[in-house]
Amino acid sequence: MIGIIGLGLIGGSVGLALRAHGGWRVVGHDRLEEVRVGAIEIGACDDVAASVEDLARESDIVMVATPSSLIPETGLLAARFMRRGAILTDAGSVKLPLQDLIAGALPVGVKYIGGHPMAGSERSGLPAASPGLFRGAVWALTAFAADREALDEVQALVRATGANPLVVDAGEHDAAVAYASHLPYVLAVALALSVERKTREIPLVRTLLAGGFRDTTRLARSDPRIAMDYCALNRGALLEAIAEFEECLRSMKADLEAVDYRALESEAERARGYLEGLSRKG
Amino acid sequence: MIGIIGLGLIGGSVGLALRAHGGWRVVGHDRLEEVRVGAIEIGACDDVAASVEDLARESDIVMVATPSSLIPETGLLAARFMRRGAILTDAGSVKLPLQDLIAGALPVGVKYIGGHPMAGSERSGLPAASPGLFRGAVWALTAFAADREALDEVQALVRATGANPLVVDAGEHDAAVAYASHLPYVLAVALALSVERKTREIPLVRTLLAGGFRDTTRLARSDPRIAMDYCALNRGALLEAIAEFEECLRSMKADLEAVDYRALESEAERARGYLEGLSRKG
Repeated sequence: MIGIIGLGLIGGSVGLALRAHGGWRVVGHDRLEEVRVGAIEIGACDDVAASVEDLARESDIVMVATPSSLIPETGLLAARFMRRGAILTDAGSVKLPLQDLIAGALPVGVKYIGGHPMAGSERSGLPAASPGLFRGAVWALTAFAADREALDEVQALVRATGANPLVVDAGEHDAAVAYASHLPYVLAVALALSVERKTREIPLVRTLLAGGFRDTTRLARSDPRIAMDYCALNRGALLEAIAEFEECLRSMKADLEAVDYRALESEAERARGYLEGLSRKG
Repeated sequence: MIGIIGLGLIGGSVGLALRAHGGWRVVGHDRLEEVRVGAIEIGACDDVAASVEDLARESDIVMVATPSSLIPETGLLAARFMRRGAILTDAGSVKLPLQDLIAGALPVGVKYIGGHPMAGSERSGLPAASPGLFRGAVWALTAFAADREALDEVQALVRATGANPLVVDAGEHDAAVAYASHLPYVLAVALALSVERKTREIPLVRTLLAGGFRDTTRLARSDPRIAMDYCALNRGALLEAIAEFEECLRSMKADLEAVDYRALESEAERARGYLEGLSRKG
């Protein structure tokens, strides 16, 4: 049996995907009763547990899919009631701080495998959950001091959601997502804010916003509380990524100031080449 | 008859849209013969002209849809051959410099109405053209010293493409698109460049790129030569927009450095509120 704690976008989608795949009994828990009822209604769980304790006692694997800041406390609470040999995993978007907080405080016999599905949506909560959310996505796993068998079990679970498991170093993971996810979020917010400011001076700005602006700012529609969690947990790596971005932007601005369109075009070509290379990877 | 010079994404889509709408005879010209042949094949034109001169002599309205930097020269060449009472318009993404270059040098009897369809794609060229490209989009028109009748004719043409004409001040337009379009492009390039740099240090970055990064950098897949045109023509307004963005980013970075997540969250909330307000406007 797999127990999922936190039935939002991620937890709900994991439940839907596992039940669509078959072969797993899925029990969920959410601190809100309406969400527990909703999860049964949409078929994200076979059953729900009224408490973390009830869920933890029965589970072979417990996945904590709460907001990242609540994962250590929730995971360690569950671990107190988990059976020997049971596995604790999570879906938090930052891995090293969670690993540090959880791995050292686990009861004997409970294994921890950190996890991070690289899929999401600017929508959040159970109503946004979908069985196909993870299809083809990478699902990073950190296997600090965990045994091979536990890792195999979590990998099988991840594959059943449609995702591709990838074992990574927690610190490298956090540096990578600072660039791949957290920096784009911060830039989307800063762009929306600068456009909002200009709109107050020239209302026409708002009228002329088109698809390019909409795409570039899509991430800034995400729930700010969830974003604050990863900004806080990944603060150091994110600050470094912002500084690196500022340097790239400063260089483009200097080219523009110097009327050096040849240099600017060559930067734009390099960016396009990198992005096209990503598409080819599929 | 409407003559379209430059049968790329915009010119090709205008031809397709007008022919789908009916009521206009569309003749196109492109400096490349293969594009002229292609435009007939996909039905973007009723006919093609081998030269700007041939096209201009017959047209009631000439629309120049070349890259922006070629518009003044091409438009003024066409104007030399246009009939008295004929109208010159264009689809350039920056309006004040084009208006300054064109309006003062027009032969007597030819009217100029500047135009800018707020629709596009990261793809370019005739193969990307589509009859629905402009459906529901704003098409900005600048009517410097033009007569009412000429403006009415261009507005009718714009409506026939499916777009909504909007008469704007050329200077305000350019300030607005610096924020709405050109700044997002520059940020997308700078983000792609900083991620590319980090990938060289940590290859995992590339593996963990997901949908958020793809959306935020979509604009950086555009043709750099076309982008350089508007960066050059709109340099002053774009530099101001970059400086304003840098200030917004610096403020978020300062909050993160100061571990002031409350301030950061309130900025993220303001950005989200602005974006949600845009969705409600439709």
